[in-house]
Amino acid sequence: MSQCPGEAGPVSGKLIGVGTGPGDPELLTLKAVRAITGADVVACFAKRGNPSNARAIVAQHLRPGQIEEALDYPVTTEIHRHAGDYKTQIQAFYDEAAERLAAHLGAGRTVAVLSEGDPLLYGSYMHLHVRLAPRFETEVIPGISAMSGCWSAAGLPLVQGDDVLTILPGTLDEPELTRRLADTQGAVIMKLGRNLPKVRAALANAGRLDGALYVERGTMNNASTMALSRKVDDAAPYFSLVLVPGWSARP
Amino acid sequence: MSQCPGEAGPVSGKLIGVGTGPGDPELLTLKAVRAITGADVVACFAKRGNPSNARAIVAQHLRPGQIEEALDYPVTTEIHRHAGDYKTQIQAFYDEAAERLAAHLGAGRTVAVLSEGDPLLYGSYMHLHVRLAPRFETEVIPGISAMSGCWSAAGLPLVQGDDVLTILPGTLDEPELTRRLADTQGAVIMKLGRNLPKVRAALANAGRLDGALYVERGTMNNASTMALSRKVDDAAPYFSLVLVPGWSARP
Ligand SMILES: C[S@@+](CC[C@H](N)C(=O)[O-])C[C@H]1O[C@@H](n2cnc3c(N)ncnc32)[C@H](O)[C@@H]1O
Ligand SMILES: C[S@@+](CC[C@H](N)C(=O)[O-])C[C@H]1O[C@@H](n2cnc3c(N)ncnc32)[C@H](O)[C@@H]1O
Repeated sequence: MSQCPGEAGPVSGKLIGVGTGPGDPELLTLKAVRAITGADVVACFAKRGNPSNARAIVAQHLRPGQIEEALDYPVTTEIHRHAGDYKTQIQAFYDEAAERLAAHLGAGRTVAVLSEGDPLLYGSYMHLHVRLAPRFETEVIPGISAMSGCWSAAGLPLVQGDDVLTILPGTLDEPELTRRLADTQGAVIMKLGRNLPKVRAALANAGRLDGALYVERGTMNNASTMALSRKVDDAAPYFSLVLVPGWSARP
Repeated sequence: MSQCPGEAGPVSGKLIGVGTGPGDPELLTLKAVRAITGADVVACFAKRGNPSNARAIVAQHLRPGQIEEALDYPVTTEIHRHAGDYKTQIQAFYDEAAERLAAHLGAGRTVAVLSEGDPLLYGSYMHLHVRLAPRFETEVIPGISAMSGCWSAAGLPLVQGDDVLTILPGTLDEPELTRRLADTQGAVIMKLGRNLPKVRAALANAGRLDGALYVERGTMNNASTMALSRKVDDAAPYFSLVLVPGWSARP
């Protein structure tokens, strides 16, 4: 995927996917800080009109004079995710975003794309990576994933020994969630939001509601953690997930 | 799990599980560096006579005058892991290790336990945590997991959208590995070593050998990555894993 440095032709820039971790700015890696500080261009995804969370995490490391590219998602929440229209619009958006960055890369600039958590784990950066890696040098700097940040903040040992760990998007349907939750030791359920009632039902059906921990805005200033069985409402913000610990045979 | 700071009684220390990441010292978080620098005692697990890998990762941040505790695993490789003897010996070892750290904690010292990758993801630190958290204040600082380090170094987008990600220990038996590999989008198989031939067979049976990537000593100086189907021998060192990417419907 990377270009040979000795190759002939115009010098082109480098695309760096930078994991910012889940929220606490102290959870940036030394490598991420260096990449952000050294980049000519810093890009991040955001919902139009909303401040980017990833940018806030790294704000103290940005230099004056750095070019910033805000990649604003089109308004797609009104369209159902599985509709054809959604797919067409979101693909066109990633195509355009990639071309905006390609212009910088073609001009020899280093472009750091901020990515919450770990870039290649359900991260939007992946869409830019697959579009640009065939043409430009790329580097991916891993980040602390949301799940790692959350189970660490909760001090919840997750899996040990021969345990299987299953990472599930809350977007799966209830029978599928139930089946998988009944067939694993540890589990993490991401993408809660409006899926929370369904996730709760699946956990109960699978006999895994006891022990399930709900974490909201993990490692951020306004984080909160509680047993999912004690959460009385069904409101889950975007930054929330459920942890189901394995390791039942603790010493 | 944490002690109330205003509580009466003698001041006791704090146990910190510090994730060191998978090998590249630049993948330490700012928080981990601060914790290591500030600790009175730095402890790590090692095989007797072998230098600790976690200690090597953080070596440049250790201060002269810091107390070091090497927690040397007993020689257990000759005993089968599922034998009763193994369990008794290893539990006695963790009990003793915890008591060694408890002495420092009781004397008011801050003890940082270095843990490769992320502490609460199949990490030995977990055994100390469950023993000491009821008695002392604890903090867990997440680390870049081996899998994140490996897929980032390989530039391999792992899971997206509705993909399920399954983390499997290579210690599971072949039918179990096969069944689970045939029923997931993304997968990571850890703990290879002598399990590699079995893991390879399970991947082939599940129709997932194509696309499987083998990563050895990911993010370390002597790292290597190759398609598993191209790895001709069955020798896998301790620091190796297999990545199976999901996200088949790339845009
Ligand atoms: C598109 S995925 C991105 C995941 C990210 N790349 C990672 O490595 O964790 C977004 C999901 O991550 C989870 N998430 C991200 N940050 C979080 C946080 N600080 N606390 C709890 N969950 C979080 C939520 O479940 C959310 O739906
Ligand atoms: C006891 S588990 C510890 C996992 C660690 N706590 C983590 O978060 O990744 C040890 C396993 O991690 C994997 N591993 C650790 N470091 C690695 C590296 N640098 N490259 C490849 N695999 C690694 C291997 O599969 C090994 O069997």
